[in-house]
Amino acid sequence: MSDTTVDDSTPCLLPDGFRAAAVACGIKDDPTTLDLALFVADGPVAAAGVFTGNRVCGAPVKVSRERVPDSRVRAVVINSGNANACTGARGIEDAKAMTAAVAAKVGCDPESVLVCSTGVIGHYLPIERITAGIPRVVDSLAGSPEAFHSAARAMMTTDTVAKQSVHEVTLAGGTCRVSGAAKGAAMIGPNMGTMLAVVMTDAVMTPDQADGTLRMAVDASFNSISVEGHTSTSDTVLLLAGGGGPVVGGDGDLAAIAVAMTSVCRDLARAIVADAEGADHLVQIDVGGLRTREEAEVIARTVADDALVKTAITGNDPNWGRIVSCCGRTGVDLVEDDITLAINGTTIFQEGTPVEYDQQAVSAAMRDEEQVVIELRFPFGEASTRFWTCDLTTEYVRLNSEYTT
Amino acid sequence: MSDTTVDDSTPCLLPDGFRAAAVACGIKDDPTTLDLALFVADGPVAAAGVFTGNRVCGAPVKVSRERVPDSRVRAVVINSGNANACTGARGIEDAKAMTAAVAAKVGCDPESVLVCSTGVIGHYLPIERITAGIPRVVDSLAGSPEAFHSAARAMMTTDTVAKQSVHEVTLAGGTCRVSGAAKGAAMIGPNMGTMLAVVMTDAVMTPDQADGTLRMAVDASFNSISVEGHTSTSDTVLLLAGGGGPVVGGDGDLAAIAVAMTSVCRDLARAIVADAEGADHLVQIDVGGLRTREEAEVIARTVADDALVKTAITGNDPNWGRIVSCCGRTGVDLVEDDITLAINGTTIFQEGTPVEYDQQAVSAAMRDEEQVVIELRFPFGEASTRFWTCDLTTEYVRLNSEYTT
Repeated sequence: MSDTTVDDSTPCLLPDGFRAAAVACGIKDDPTTLDLALFVADGPVAAAGVFTGNRVCGAPVKVSRERVPDSRVRAVVINSGNANACTGARGIEDAKAMTAAVAAKVGCDPESVLVCSTGVIGHYLPIERITAGIPRVVDSLAGSPEAFHSAARAMMTTDTVAKQSVHEVTLAGGTCRVSGAAKGAAMIGPNMGTMLAVVMTDAVMTPDQADGTLRMAVDASFNSISVEGHTSTSDTVLLLAGGGGPVVGGDGDLAAIAVAMTSVCRDLARAIVADAEGADHLVQIDVGGLRTREEAEVIARTVADDALVKTAITGNDPNWGRIVSCCGRTGVDLVEDDITLAINGTTIFQEGTPVEYDQQAVSAAMRDEEQVVIELRFPFGEASTRFWTCDLTTEYVRLNSEYTT
Repeated sequence: MSDTTVDDSTPCLLPDGFRAAAVACGIKDDPTTLDLALFVADGPVAAAGVFTGNRVCGAPVKVSRERVPDSRVRAVVINSGNANACTGARGIEDAKAMTAAVAAKVGCDPESVLVCSTGVIGHYLPIERITAGIPRVVDSLAGSPEAFHSAARAMMTTDTVAKQSVHEVTLAGGTCRVSGAAKGAAMIGPNMGTMLAVVMTDAVMTPDQADGTLRMAVDASFNSISVEGHTSTSDTVLLLAGGGGPVVGGDGDLAAIAVAMTSVCRDLARAIVADAEGADHLVQIDVGGLRTREEAEVIARTVADDALVKTAITGNDPNWGRIVSCCGRTGVDLVEDDITLAINGTTIFQEGTPVEYDQQAVSAAMRDEEQVVIELRFPFGEASTRFWTCDLTTEYVRLNSEYTT
């Protein structure tokens, strides 16, 4: 499996049999900013989706959720600048109108088109502008890295870089590609934080295979990141799988494609956290030695979402008291003697006792290294998890308080 | 029942039969800053306590928790500047040494003395300085408002004002007083956020009565506030009840004393939130119309702890999307059509639909009124709750990131 670096300037390839495009259709204030993206498969493909757990969810979530898993999907249309959430019956109509317009131009059933929206909540879509833009975006479809990059850019709201990842993987029947694009949990002004991702592969999968591998990949990536713990109304990850690539056969193939898909999703998830509003530090939290995965996850998530831990990291402060106290407030059956904590490889709290360590060196590592790694070890079992978050800065507060609805 | 305003400059009375004192014994960097407080009852009284739910808890929590409820308590000794948490067996010894030193000078059983500590985590107490200070603090005991105020000041860490409240209440057997002092959830530098409160009354209660009424009062006050949702290792609320006041008799007396105690605890709880680090807005969250109290509480707490809601309030932005989305992510069975939202009395979202309203007027009210009131109404039942929080400011982040361990 070869990695392609996630970088705004590195060209990322689409899988064979997929095309992408983007146009500016006037949803955003600046009429020249790309705000409508389209991904199209040359023929019907298997599709799966993972959607927000928020009971208050956007109209596109409701529409797309009904349409997967399925084996006859052709396209995903995405607009940025307006989330089409809390918009009632008219929101549903508008979301369906977007898919109908794509279907009419591409030549397929409207039910074969998935839809996502991200941006301001509680405003109706400028649907005439969008349906006017759809023929143009279909006419622009191309299989080039430039077209893929444009589509990734058109998904952005307050993201500062487009987020793409490509991994190639060899199955029994040949080589295929897994390509993904995402937008991040950036949430300023009236916007809701929304995380959207589209993953495509030319590997031929059944809807069940697509659904199962996507859920595994999302669990180890997008479900293991947090900026401030707010599950938005619009979070969506979609997978389109099929076309000219090898057919996913036995368990070995399924494992290989699952690993590649997880790698793509992890690249995108880390890119989202790294690009979070106002973030200065990317933080990886490794929790091990618990009785169950659920125990490890609640500890990781509690540390990741804690304002005291996040502000300590902002200040490059290895403040173990805040992290140890987080473990205690999770409800997991533990006492301080069960906790060992290392930061960027240096153990600073061992089985309930503070360890002598070079505080200046650990603080410098927090400041200078690519990410802050918090490692929590327990003596209870083999269950573990890995989670990513970012710090909490004055810039985050400024961005999220100064913009008004 | 007469209210006494909570104000750093208003003299607050102790109940009859109680004395208080404070000294500086050199726990804090500035040797002239009060850091040791003592509350003493003239004779044995009933005592109850409510302690942190954090499994990682300070030594004083472990020691005091063993000693209540009981009917023979005489004193509460409190130091600030050091939390005596994560300090192992020596921490327990030190906490017990504090109670023994008080008992020796007051003339009672060490088991009759309760102890609290607040401040830095993971450092051993300077126990010699504390035991040297204890005879001095006992010698300073007085029943005056000034002595009570000094003791309240000696509990403070980064609080900017002492927090006291007094309510008088008439029972069948006569009038009594409920007096309380608290320190806040201020949490800078290496400190853990810690909330401590001591409530005293001259009403004569059994330990069971004391325990039951204290739990009710705490549930409606200290358990209904949040600064950033981090339950500290040291949170403690203690009640001492007894002396020369009326005996609490039938249900009417018990209800009356419970109401007075709840009022005192709510005054102190609101004062803690209002004095939270960097807070610009005090926020009251009223949630009604749910099937159960638990549903109402999870909604109130989710809104209260949400960084996006808190930063919107910082910016005086009636950002209903963030609040409505919080309701959806609680797991409570609801959809947007079930939600009606008012801010400072103005309905801005009604049963799933945005309402036309004067946004500038609502924003101005958020800026100018004493508190921001968020009211969420649901159509499911009669259960409700009231919760207090504060906003999230750049000053909070600065305070919690710039100070290092």
